[in-house]
Parts: sequence; structure tokens; C-alpha cells
Amino acid sequence: MDVDLANSITIYDTTLRDGAQREGLSLSLEDKIRIARALDQLGVPFIEGGWPGANPKDVQFFWQLQENPLNHAEVVAFCSTRRPHSTAAEDSMLQAILAAGTRWVTLFGKSWDLHVTEGLKTSLEENLAMIQDTIEFLRASGRRVIYDAEHWFDGYKQNPEYALQTLLAACRAGAEWLVFCDTNGGTLPHEIAQIVREAIAAIHPIEPQAQFGIHTHNDSDTAVANALAAVQAGVTMVQGTINGYGERCGNANLCSLIPNLQLKLGYPCISDEQILHLSQTSRFVSEVVNLAPDEHAPFVGRSAFAHKGGIHVSAVERNPLTYEHIQPEQVGNRRRIVISDQAGLSNVLAKARTFGIDLDRQDPVCREILQRLKELESQGYQFEAAEASFDLLMRSALGQRQTLFEIRGFQVHCNMIPNPDNPYARPDSLATVKITVNGQEILEAAEGNGPVAALDAALRKALMNFYPAIADFYLTDYKVRILDGTAGTSAKTRVLVESSNGLQRWTTVGVSPNILDASYQAVVEALEYGLLISNQLPLVART
Amino acid sequence: MDVDLANSITIYDTTLRDGAQREGLSLSLEDKIRIARALDQLGVPFIEGGWPGANPKDVQFFWQLQENPLNHAEVVAFCSTRRPHSTAAEDSMLQAILAAGTRWVTLFGKSWDLHVTEGLKTSLEENLAMIQDTIEFLRASGRRVIYDAEHWFDGYKQNPEYALQTLLAACRAGAEWLVFCDTNGGTLPHEIAQIVREAIAAIHPIEPQAQFGIHTHNDSDTAVANALAAVQAGVTMVQGTINGYGERCGNANLCSLIPNLQLKLGYPCISDEQILHLSQTSRFVSEVVNLAPDEHAPFVGRSAFAHKGGIHVSAVERNPLTYEHIQPEQVGNRRRIVISDQAGLSNVLAKARTFGIDLDRQDPVCREILQRLKELESQGYQFEAAEASFDLLMRSALGQRQTLFEIRGFQVHCNMIPNPDNPYARPDSLATVKITVNGQEILEAAEGNGPVAALDAALRKALMNFYPAIADFYLTDYKVRILDGTAGTSAKTRVLVESSNGLQRWTTVGVSPNILDASYQAVVEALEYGLLISNQLPLVART
Repeated sequence: MDVDLANSITIYDTTLRDGAQREGLSLSLEDKIRIARALDQLGVPFIEGGWPGANPKDVQFFWQLQENPLNHAEVVAFCSTRRPHSTAAEDSMLQAILAAGTRWVTLFGKSWDLHVTEGLKTSLEENLAMIQDTIEFLRASGRRVIYDAEHWFDGYKQNPEYALQTLLAACRAGAEWLVFCDTNGGTLPHEIAQIVREAIAAIHPIEPQAQFGIHTHNDSDTAVANALAAVQAGVTMVQGTINGYGERCGNANLCSLIPNLQLKLGYPCISDEQILHLSQTSRFVSEVVNLAPDEHAPFVGRSAFAHKGGIHVSAVERNPLTYEHIQPEQVGNRRRIVISDQAGLSNVLAKARTFGIDLDRQDPVCREILQRLKELESQGYQFEAAEASFDLLMRSALGQRQTLFEIRGFQVHCNMIPNPDNPYARPDSLATVKITVNGQEILEAAEGNGPVAALDAALRKALMNFYPAIADFYLTDYKVRILDGTAGTSAKTRVLVESSNGLQRWTTVGVSPNILDASYQAVVEALEYGLLISNQLPLVART
Repeated sequence: MDVDLANSITIYDTTLRDGAQREGLSLSLEDKIRIARALDQLGVPFIEGGWPGANPKDVQFFWQLQENPLNHAEVVAFCSTRRPHSTAAEDSMLQAILAAGTRWVTLFGKSWDLHVTEGLKTSLEENLAMIQDTIEFLRASGRRVIYDAEHWFDGYKQNPEYALQTLLAACRAGAEWLVFCDTNGGTLPHEIAQIVREAIAAIHPIEPQAQFGIHTHNDSDTAVANALAAVQAGVTMVQGTINGYGERCGNANLCSLIPNLQLKLGYPCISDEQILHLSQTSRFVSEVVNLAPDEHAPFVGRSAFAHKGGIHVSAVERNPLTYEHIQPEQVGNRRRIVISDQAGLSNVLAKARTFGIDLDRQDPVCREILQRLKELESQGYQFEAAEASFDLLMRSALGQRQTLFEIRGFQVHCNMIPNPDNPYARPDSLATVKITVNGQEILEAAEGNGPVAALDAALRKALMNFYPAIADFYLTDYKVRILDGTAGTSAKTRVLVESSNGLQRWTTVGVSPNILDASYQAVVEALEYGLLISNQLPLVART
């Protein structure tokens, strides 16, 4: 396992515990299991699963993993030191920890004298006893222990002697890892480096077997740099979360730390095959927690290797390494040529190539596409994320866009009479569409809970007989954005619709001040594009 | 001006140029002017306005600022060195720069030998001549010059001697600032510190008057730490953007850099009064560029000082500085007690206090509010951002919610016949509402371009005679979020409506699988809350 390699860094993930503290993020039991398995696959050696006993969900999580264990990763239970003036043995909280049945337990304790006297309202001596007693109890129960020194850096600045005593107490009691936590996230890299160096220098002569870790938060926008500084100062464990999820401004982002450590600084963390899954893991986790992925995230974001501007693009294609700090493929990401109103001709050509079309720079169709593109983008369309609509645009320009069906018109009707017993009763919506396929006219109607759902249902109903493939299509995402905030409810609306046929995914776009119209445009293009790729109609360049 | 203070750092903003490179961000001329004035107010001494000549928008931008100049800031024109094997005097691009009429010009040139030979396809000597000749021309035309050394760090690693020669050429020609640019964003803090120290040590003995700057990108997730490392290594200018906007993963975020430098490291950047506007400026810019603000952004994000969980909250209120790395008010932000399904009673009490209500912990109404809150949030409502709806919720629980009007029902009808001449013709929408006010029943109808606009118009029309104050209300923002991505067009929709009466702003929320219903809920509560605060009905606690 990587952790055995000399000079390697042990990755410790706390997405399921600290990450879940992020405002607006909530995890079901099933979510937690799915994420744990994804982290196991990624090759993360330690996965902090939660605080069993603190809530029933976490108890069940550990039970389920006892029945179906992970392949490689150690799943870790998290808890605090025992209560003041009691014994660990009689602390019910710790009984729940043992019941979780993990080999490893992460225990957090107070390093900052002020938190002991003001927060715990107990004596500094009792806090040391709580750390030592709790760890000895866990060791006697056969657990291996990681000790998280909460508020370490703030505590050390106020009272270094006491802060060091807490670590020595943890070590004497049998903790194998001592983790420096910047709980408030206020410490800057140079302070981290200095304090970690001092602490290791003070502890190592006394406890030569001690291993050290770092846990940082992003309140100063330096969480990743702080963790790197600690590694360069001698720690060998790094704690963080996928996508940097966490309370307030988040935790150190493992999706940035792993490539920085492994690809740039040469510290092995996971295998070279495993790191290829990094971008995929980042997106999977954001899907499971149902948060839009940060497209501008370093290394793993959709835009992390996106290039705009004509000259630049040709240069990148000639010699990528002079314009990209790493090869996108190393972390499972890819270079993207951005189609935008800044697009030059070479962008269009490069983009066309990604659709397998080889356009001739001299061909007037190129200018035509570019022209149409700028026209639509000035109206608010945006093809950066709607590549299926861009493909259809090119087909039109190339005279290769078949008419599979024509919409003659649609009507949508919503009716609501509030129900006093249920103030949130939903209005049903009814949609009627008139379309023609091969000259034949079809009128169909369908209901849905919402006008867009009704419209979508009516269209499918009308087309199903002609194009049975539509039965396999489903919408995987539906995004609405208001383009002009100041115009309120009559602002322009951009709708992005992501569809799937079970094998491929494609995204289409619609824009209108009328959200129904914008949705209608995107849904219609989604159906058209789905039919095109399902029938594998090849897109051939004009010659 | 701050730049004159000893030990101060000169802030250089490039939101309008480098920031505009962000994928999905586009700025109108009016947007650029509004942002420039906001930066001027914030006290940023240098504002890079764009590349006049590269596009007509930037030309007009500089003209407009010549007519109505900023109060304090220097607006800077940005451009590249002249073409190879020509003279600066005959370079039309540079004529456009002079026409911009700025006192300062930022010129970027190549530092990396490979970019000279492969990119520019010219000799290393000619590149030096291009730098020197262009700067001398600008100086002779009365301009002061900042020199951006593009790809500095990559260039220095490959060929330090040549990289240093480019800086010396710029300096000899009269550039006052030499800016180290990490154009690809791949450099880590320890490398930045070492290379900046070496470069300054090499140049200073020869050109003692030279001043140095840093320009970083976030591709390694260390842009802010990189800039801090450069400052600690001797640079006195920091370049960055508001909210870290920029190509790929963005530029160094000034909203993090300014407080880190000024509040933590003691380098004056802007005045203590000006820094109070930092959060406001961050939100203003995100509104103008129409990107959702990053709620988890360090220092300025809505969640940057958000606290969850009952015990924690009481501890924070007792002694904030042991749980917050700075005082939120120092950057114009505020502590937030998060009202969420994790909310404890103390959160509700603290939240109520922010509305001026002093609830008694023993009062059963507290539990009632908490109960209703968790119920609604489990349905997808979210009051973190919709405080007006939360206020109405509390009024109901306190039995203080007056019935100003009742909705008996509404109907919305959309009809579209595509127009072959204009494929993007918009369907008109017609809405009818039936309401009762003081027992009197009103039926009204209105049209709008879109169902929500029509519904909103019909409601106002119906209420106007009874509540003339409504004439002053307008919607300032309308946000739609799909709560369950996988359910496609029938997913649950959350609508946030922000309204204003010209003096105050308030936000309301609605949730439904039907986007019309969700919008209807939010619009109705917006009208109700607006009437309440316009009539200054005080909210008194029960005693």
C-alpha cells in the first residue's frame, strides 16, 4: 500500500464528517456508503465515516460497512475525549465508538487552554487526563488511535507549553498519529511551517515513534498551501475533503492536494492508475451530494484546462506543456477549446475536430458558423456547456441537419384553486402540441406536475410512434439561469437540459424571456440530437 | 494615498481584463464602468481597464473615463510589446494605447525563451529589443509603465539568465514596476518565494530604483498563498481580481488578499474605512457580472462566518474570537446563525433577535417555529437566504400575521405558433387571478412575456387600488434552482425572489415541482412582506 512507500504521504479523507458540515449539504445513509466506496476505489487509505452515537445515521453507516467492508481503506470512527471528571470506561459515548467496530478511532481533544477553561469549564490538568485516559481506554479495547489536536495553532500561539503537553499526553497514552488542526482556518502558511517545525522538534526527541498530520480549513484562502507547508515541515498525513467541502469556507481540497503532492512534489499518495480517477471522483461526489460542480476547480474542474482566444489555442495545440501546468489526462481531466463570443476561427476549427469534422479554414461555412455563433451568444445563448446544440448548429450550416419533425405550435395551461387544507397544493399543468412528421400531422396532449413536464410529456407522446428510441431518453438535469437579474420576472431565461439514452449524455440550450419557451427550445433540440446519435447518423464534412 | 505609506502594498486590480477571461463571464461597456467606479470607491489604486484596440468596447471604456474620470484610481491600459522586426512608432496597436489617454500603461512581454522562439517565432535578441523599444516609445509619449513578465516562473526555471535579461531590458527602458507573472498558475509557494528572492537579489544591485509586483493564477489552488509568499520575498505590488475571477481556475482573489495582507500581516493596502466595503464590493461585482456569489468564499462569503449547531452557537456568542479568525465586521461581513434542519433552539432565538424579537426560551412558540421550520426545510424550503419568508413564518407562529389579501385562484395560459420568419418568436402569456381584499372579490387579468411575469402583473393590478405602495415595489432578482437533478423537468423547483421598494430589499422563497407555483408563492410573500415593512407595522414580541 502506498502508505508503506518511503517518503509517501498518508491521505485521510473527512468528506463524510467534516465535509458534511458545509451549509446546504446533507447526506443520506446511502449517499455516505456510495461516497465511501468511491474513496476506497480512489485509493484513499483512511476514510473518516462520522461520529457513531452522535446520530443514528452514522451508527447504521458503520454497521453496514461491518457487513460489507471496503476493499482497502480503513474506515475511521470520530469522537471527542471523555467528559470531565468521569472515566472513559463509563462514558456511553465511547461505548458507541467501540460498537462501530473499526480498527482505527480518531479522537479530538483541546489544545487551547482558553477552550479548556471557558469551553469545557474544567482545569488544564483534567483536560490532559481526559486525553490520556480516553486513548488508553481505546488502546486497551484494541483500537489504534489518531489524535486530532483541535485549535492547535491558536492554542500554540497563546500557550505553547500547554499545547505541547496535550500532544505528549496523547502520545504517551498510545496515539500513533498526532494531527495539527487549524480549526478556525485563520493561520497563514509561514506560521504553519514555523509552528509545525517547532512542535515536531520538541516532541520527536521524547517520542521518536510519533507520526504527525495536518488538518486545515480555508478561511484564509490558503488551506491547500497550509497543508503543503506542513508536509514540507515534516508531517506525513494530510487530512482534507473531496472538492474542499466543509463548514464555512471549507476544508483543504484533496482534489488539489493529491496532484500537488504526487505530481509536483513527488510524494506518493495513491497509485498512478488511481489518480486517473480523480476528476471522475470529484464529479461523482458533487452529484451524490447534489451540488453543482465547481467548473473552475483546480485540476478537476471543467474549465481547469479550457482555452479561449484564437492565437492562444493554436499555440496550445502545438506545445501544450508551455500553456498547461500539468497534462489534464494525468488527473482524468481533458483540455477544452471554449466556444464563446471571443472565439476566433481556429477555435471553431478545433471545436469542430472534437466532433470529428475536419473543416477547411477557407470554407465560407466556417465564417458562417462563427457569425451565427456570435449572433446567438449576444442573445444570451451559451454553447460552452451545450455541445449538442452546437453540433446541431454546425449541421445546419453544413446543410446536413435533417428535419425529423416540425413543431406547429404548443399551448400550456395551468389552473390553481388554493386548497385551504393544503396551502401548498400543486396546480396541474396541461400541454397540447401540434407537430408534423413526414407530412403527417399529430395533435397530442399530456398532463404533468408543472408546465415544462407537461410540454415534455406531450412531445414524447407525439413522437413515440415514429421514433421508438425516444422511449429510452430521459432528462438527467434541468438548469435554469436568469440572465438579467435586474429585469425580475421578465428577465431573459437560459435553460440547459442534459439528457441521456443510458449510454451517452448530451446538453442542449434554450433562451427566451419566457421560461416555457426557453425550456421548449432545449427539450426539442434534446430530442432531435438524441435521435441523431441513436441512429448514428455520421456527420461528414463537406468536400 | 496608501501607496505612499511605508511598508504598504500597492493593489492592482485586473478584474476588467484578466477577470473577464473567465469562461461564462461577459461584460458590457456599462458593466465595466460600474465595476471601475466600485473599485475606485474601494480604494484600489490601479485598475486595469482592458486592451484598447483589441476590441471596440475597451476603446469606448477609456473614452468614457476620459470624460468622467475616476476619483482616485489610475485606470491602466494593457497591451503587448510591438511586433517583431518593426518599430514601436509605426505599430498601430500602440497608437490605440496612446489614444486611450491613460497616465499608466501595463505592457506584457515574453520571459520564456521557448515562447519567443516557438510562439513569436523570432530571436531572443529581437524579443529584448521589442521590450526595450516599446517601453522607450511609451515613456517618450509621456506614459508611465508597468511591465508584466509573462510566464516568468516557467521561463526562469528553464533559462534564468535570459529571463533576468528581459527584466533588465524593461527596467533600462524606463518601466517603474516589474511584475512576476505565473501565467500558467503551476508554481507552488516555496518556488515563488525562492525565485522572487533570487530575481530581486540579481536585479536590485543593478537597478536600485526598480519596484516589483506579483501576478498569480489559481491552477494549483495556491494563488493567494503564492502572492503572499512573493510579498514576504520583497514585492510591493499585488495583482488580482475581485472574487478571483479569471481564465481557467481564476486569478488571485483580492477579496482574500487584501484582508490577509492588511488585517493579518500588517501591510497597509486600503484604508480601514474602505476595507469595510469589501464584502459589499464582492457581492456588487458578482451581481454586475451576473454570477451567483460564492457563499463559501473566505472573508466575504455569506457562509464565511456562519455557525451551525446549538452548543457551538452559544459558545461563539460568548467569545467570538476563539471561533472566528477575524471579526466579520472588519470586512463588512457579518456572523450568521444558520437556520437549518440542524438548528437548535438557541439558533432560533439568536435568529429572532436579528429581527428585533426577544423570544422567551420557555415560550412554546419557539418549539412551534422550530418544528414548522424543520418541516418546511425537509420539503426543500430554505430560509438561510429568504429572511422575509422566515419573518412571515414567525409572525404566523406569534399570531401577528395579518391577512392583507387572499388568493382564490389563478390561471396561466401560454400559446405559441412558431413563426418561420422568426424561429425564436416568443409566446405571450396570459394570467388571471381572483383575490379577495376586505371581503371584496377582484378578478384581474394581465399579459406578460412569460407566465411568471404575467402572474406578477395580474396580482399587482388586482392589489394596486387597495395598496398603492405596491407601485413602488419591483423585483430585483429572480433565482430558480432545481432541487433534484435526477428528476429532470418534474424535479422540485425552489424560487428565490428578491424585491425592493427603493429603500429596502427583501427575499422570499417558494418551493414546488411546478415552477409557476413556486414562483407564485414567492411573489405573493414578497408583496405581503413589502406591504408590512412599507406600513412599518412593528413586530412586537408576545409578553
